[in-house]
Amino acid sequence: MNRKELIEQIKKKGSFLCVGLDTDIKKIPEHLLSCEDPIFEFNKAIIDATADYCVAYKPNVAFYESLGVAGWNALDKTVRYLRENYPDQFVIADAKRGDIGNTSSLYARAFFESLQVDALTVAPYMGEDSVKPFLAYEGKWVILLALTSNPGSRDFQFMAQPDGERLFEMVLEKAQRWGNEDNLMFVVGATQGEMFADVRRVAPRSFLLVPGVGAQGGSLEEVAKWGMTTECGLLVNSSRGIIYASHGEDFAEVAAAEARKLRDHMSILLSTRGVI
Amino acid sequence: MNRKELIEQIKKKGSFLCVGLDTDIKKIPEHLLSCEDPIFEFNKAIIDATADYCVAYKPNVAFYESLGVAGWNALDKTVRYLRENYPDQFVIADAKRGDIGNTSSLYARAFFESLQVDALTVAPYMGEDSVKPFLAYEGKWVILLALTSNPGSRDFQFMAQPDGERLFEMVLEKAQRWGNEDNLMFVVGATQGEMFADVRRVAPRSFLLVPGVGAQGGSLEEVAKWGMTTECGLLVNSSRGIIYASHGEDFAEVAAAEARKLRDHMSILLSTRGVI
Repeated sequence: MNRKELIEQIKKKGSFLCVGLDTDIKKIPEHLLSCEDPIFEFNKAIIDATADYCVAYKPNVAFYESLGVAGWNALDKTVRYLRENYPDQFVIADAKRGDIGNTSSLYARAFFESLQVDALTVAPYMGEDSVKPFLAYEGKWVILLALTSNPGSRDFQFMAQPDGERLFEMVLEKAQRWGNEDNLMFVVGATQGEMFADVRRVAPRSFLLVPGVGAQGGSLEEVAKWGMTTECGLLVNSSRGIIYASHGEDFAEVAAAEARKLRDHMSILLSTRGVI
Repeated sequence: MNRKELIEQIKKKGSFLCVGLDTDIKKIPEHLLSCEDPIFEFNKAIIDATADYCVAYKPNVAFYESLGVAGWNALDKTVRYLRENYPDQFVIADAKRGDIGNTSSLYARAFFESLQVDALTVAPYMGEDSVKPFLAYEGKWVILLALTSNPGSRDFQFMAQPDGERLFEMVLEKAQRWGNEDNLMFVVGATQGEMFADVRRVAPRSFLLVPGVGAQGGSLEEVAKWGMTTECGLLVNSSRGIIYASHGEDFAEVAAAEARKLRDHMSILLSTRGVI
C-alpha cells in the first residue's frame, strides 16, 4: 500500500488506529485453546471485529516466533487472511530486524516476499547497509526505530553530540537520505510526549508509528497535538488495550468496542486539526 | 556452557574459531538439493568436518527465516544435532533481536527454551529493558552488538558525546552494569582494527565475538594483537570463507582444510601470547 492510499484510508475511516496482534497463547480466552490453531482463530476474530475501526494491523513477530513452527504458521495464516479479506488494511510485521547488507536482504525476502507484509520495523544501530536492502522493495516500507516507548529508550537514544544533536535525531536525519516519505516511517513512542515536536522538526512529513498508548501510559491527545501533520502522518498502535480487553467469550465484541472508542477519539482529533 | 568451560575448550583445541552457518539454499552444492532437507544435510556435513578445529557454531537466523517453516525446521535440527553429537561446542543464534521488555522475554523463550542455544546476539538500541530478559537465563549468554563489521557501523556507532565517549563505548560501559563477563559478550567487527584497543579499555575481560575475518577483509593478526586477553577472550567467526570454500562434492573436505588452516594460525597466536 502506498502513501496516498494509506492517507485515503485514514480519511475515509476517520481513524489512524493500528491494532497490535501481540497474540500470546497464555492470554487468549480458554475456549479457543481446543481449536486446531488457537492463535489464528483469535486473530481472525479480532480482525473481523475491529477492521471497521482501524487502518492497520501489526503482529509483533516475537509472539509467533516464541511458538516455533506453529507460531510461524499462525503468522502466515493471519497475514494471508488480512490480504484476502481486508486488502485495504496496512500490514506491519513488527520484527525489529537489521543485519549486515547481504543478511538484511534475506530478512527482506522473508518478510516482503514470503510473508508479503506492507512494512517491517527495523533497528538502526548497524547503519545504512543494514537498512537499504529493505528499501529496495517497490511499494514496501521500512519503519525504523527512532525514539521507542520503553524505559530503556533513555539509555542511548538521547545521547547528544557536542552540537546538541541526539542519537534519535541523527537516525531521523540520516535515514531520510536513504529513503523518503514514500517508503520510510519512524517508530516514536507515545510515552515521549513533547519530544514529538523535536521529531517533527527533523521529519516534518514522515509517517510515525506510535506504540505506547494505553498499557504503556502514552496519551493520544499529546501525540496528536505534537505529532499530527496535515495528512495525519500518524499510525497509533494499541495492542493489549484492545485484544485483551476481555478474556471471556465476548473478547472480540469487547475488542471492537475498545477499537471503536479509539476511532471516535481519533475522528475528533482529525477533524479538530482539519485533516478531515 | 559457562565461561570456564569455554576457555577450557579454547585451550584444549588451540582454537577460538566460530564457524558461521550462514547456509544459503542458493549457494550449497547442487548434489544436496535432492535431499529431503538440503540445509540440514549441508550443516551436518560442515559440522562433522570442522568440529575438531572450532569451539563454536553460529547459525545466522536470517538465512533460515528466509525459508519460512522449512528453514526453522532446519535450524532446529541443526542445533539439536550439535547438542547431541558435539556437546562441547558453544552454539550461538545470530538473530540480533531486541524489543521492549515483555517482548524480549518472548524472544528469550524462543531461543533459550525452544531452540536451546547457548547465546543470542542482541541489538542495543532500545536499552536496558530490551536486554535484561535475555540475561535472566542462568547459563545463557547475551552477545550485544557494540562495533559491527559493516560499512554502516560508521553511521551511528562512532557518534561522540562532548566528553569524547562514543556510542559503542557507552554500549560497552552501560551493558556491563546489566550483565557481567559470565553472561555478556560483545560483537566487535574484525574490520575495526585498532579500535579493539579502545574496546579493551572499556571491556578488558569480556569475550568478544568477532565477525568480518575473511570475506569482509578483517585480519586475524590485528584482532589478536589488540583484542586478545590472557584467557583469549575472543571468538572469531568465519562463515563464507569456510562453508563456501568449495561448491563441489568435496565442500566438507575443503571446509575442513580452511578451518584447520585458521585453527593452526590461531594456535600460534594463542601460544605467542601465552594463553596456551
